[in-house]
Amino acid sequence: MKINILGFGNVGQHLYRAFSLQKDVYIAQVYSRTKFKQSDPMIPFVHEISKIEPADVQIIALPDDVISDFSKKLSFTNQLVVHTSGSSSIQDIHNTRRKGVFYALQTFSKDIKIDFTSVPICIEGTYENDLKTLERLGRTISKKVIEINSEKRRKLHLAAVCVNNFANHLYDVSESYLNKHAIDFNLLHPLILETAKKIEKKIPREVQTGPAKRLDKNTIDSHLQLLKDNKTLSEIYTVMTNSIIKTHHN
Amino acid sequence: MKINILGFGNVGQHLYRAFSLQKDVYIAQVYSRTKFKQSDPMIPFVHEISKIEPADVQIIALPDDVISDFSKKLSFTNQLVVHTSGSSSIQDIHNTRRKGVFYALQTFSKDIKIDFTSVPICIEGTYENDLKTLERLGRTISKKVIEINSEKRRKLHLAAVCVNNFANHLYDVSESYLNKHAIDFNLLHPLILETAKKIEKKIPREVQTGPAKRLDKNTIDSHLQLLKDNKTLSEIYTVMTNSIIKTHHN
Repeated sequence: MKINILGFGNVGQHLYRAFSLQKDVYIAQVYSRTKFKQSDPMIPFVHEISKIEPADVQIIALPDDVISDFSKKLSFTNQLVVHTSGSSSIQDIHNTRRKGVFYALQTFSKDIKIDFTSVPICIEGTYENDLKTLERLGRTISKKVIEINSEKRRKLHLAAVCVNNFANHLYDVSESYLNKHAIDFNLLHPLILETAKKIEKKIPREVQTGPAKRLDKNTIDSHLQLLKDNKTLSEIYTVMTNSIIKTHHN
Repeated sequence: MKINILGFGNVGQHLYRAFSLQKDVYIAQVYSRTKFKQSDPMIPFVHEISKIEPADVQIIALPDDVISDFSKKLSFTNQLVVHTSGSSSIQDIHNTRRKGVFYALQTFSKDIKIDFTSVPICIEGTYENDLKTLERLGRTISKKVIEINSEKRRKLHLAAVCVNNFANHLYDVSESYLNKHAIDFNLLHPLILETAKKIEKKIPREVQTGPAKRLDKNTIDSHLQLLKDNKTLSEIYTVMTNSIIKTHHN
């Protein structure tokens, strides 16, 4: 299968890396507006949209707000063009009837390699044949390929923001807080990992613990007292605590 | 080393299990007010405080708010008595000069086994010799034993509440939301695990991603629109999003 990767940011680079290891996938072109000073000479870069030549699948891996404009500039009218966004609709793709989505439900950071094997690939397509192509493409890198429409994908992406971006921000504010008091944040790593692993065995509601769950007002008050000069963290503490109490004691 | 475990809730049971596997530790007595109908006949239960006989270390594994009263009822005046609480002071222990703390920084749930090897054991003591005893005891189950005073332990516990209880609540509200829309929460497991693992390699601030980090107002608005009938989740969404924006764009 011949593919083009259009965009070479976080998602584009991770997809490039994953597909370049698959013998059944041939990456024909990689579009990047930027010319990188140092980059792998093996990568078949093109830097102008007009130079993109049709492959079996063109994967747009660009920011949500440019998908629409970028796809309008593609000269294809009968090629499969997909984007990789969780929150954009399949309808954001233009200039082709053969629209699709190839959304990898994972968090991509620079310099951190991803094993795609267990990453859910959420696909969407207008035509049955294109869906089959996307499923086959997805299966080259992942065991889990599922069809999901734009509306549900948007909701899934919202939940992903909560468990990933918001959880990471909780780690961040905790790290800042401990740092300020000369306490080693790394001590929390085993706890963070166990919290994440636990819900593979039980649903989150069943394994909720802590002062809010126990309605332990002494501890809650003592924590808020510690946070009285920390507006950011005390706001988060209050909202999360109230929400846990409402969930478990209403 | 001879120890007593006083209290047989979540923490008591997990400590019992961990110490019972150590050849250098002998569990002399386990205090539990409740008589369990079905329980391991090997566990040396006592059900009356007056029947507790001194061991090298008495570990109180009871709710924070009863530590003080319970320790007053102990007849010891010269024995090492420690509690296992993150947020209680060492001074909550009475009737002995030899007070201490043995706080395992981990989340304990029923039916989920814990490998203590990497769990930080935070110890505190009044006397150097007692600290040595607690360190030796901690090392039988964990590679990581650190001395930390009550004030710092309270802050560590607060951070633990954020990364564990609050993160789990984020998983919970996401699960409820996806459930309501017939979307499989399990799809998020790889993302949740990756989010937790990532910060072992980089600090959380560096790996923050998502719409708030990118100041992607379209996606944020579209999420809040999706949540307009979900007061709980939209409050959490707003507070976390604002805090991420403040952290990364101020």
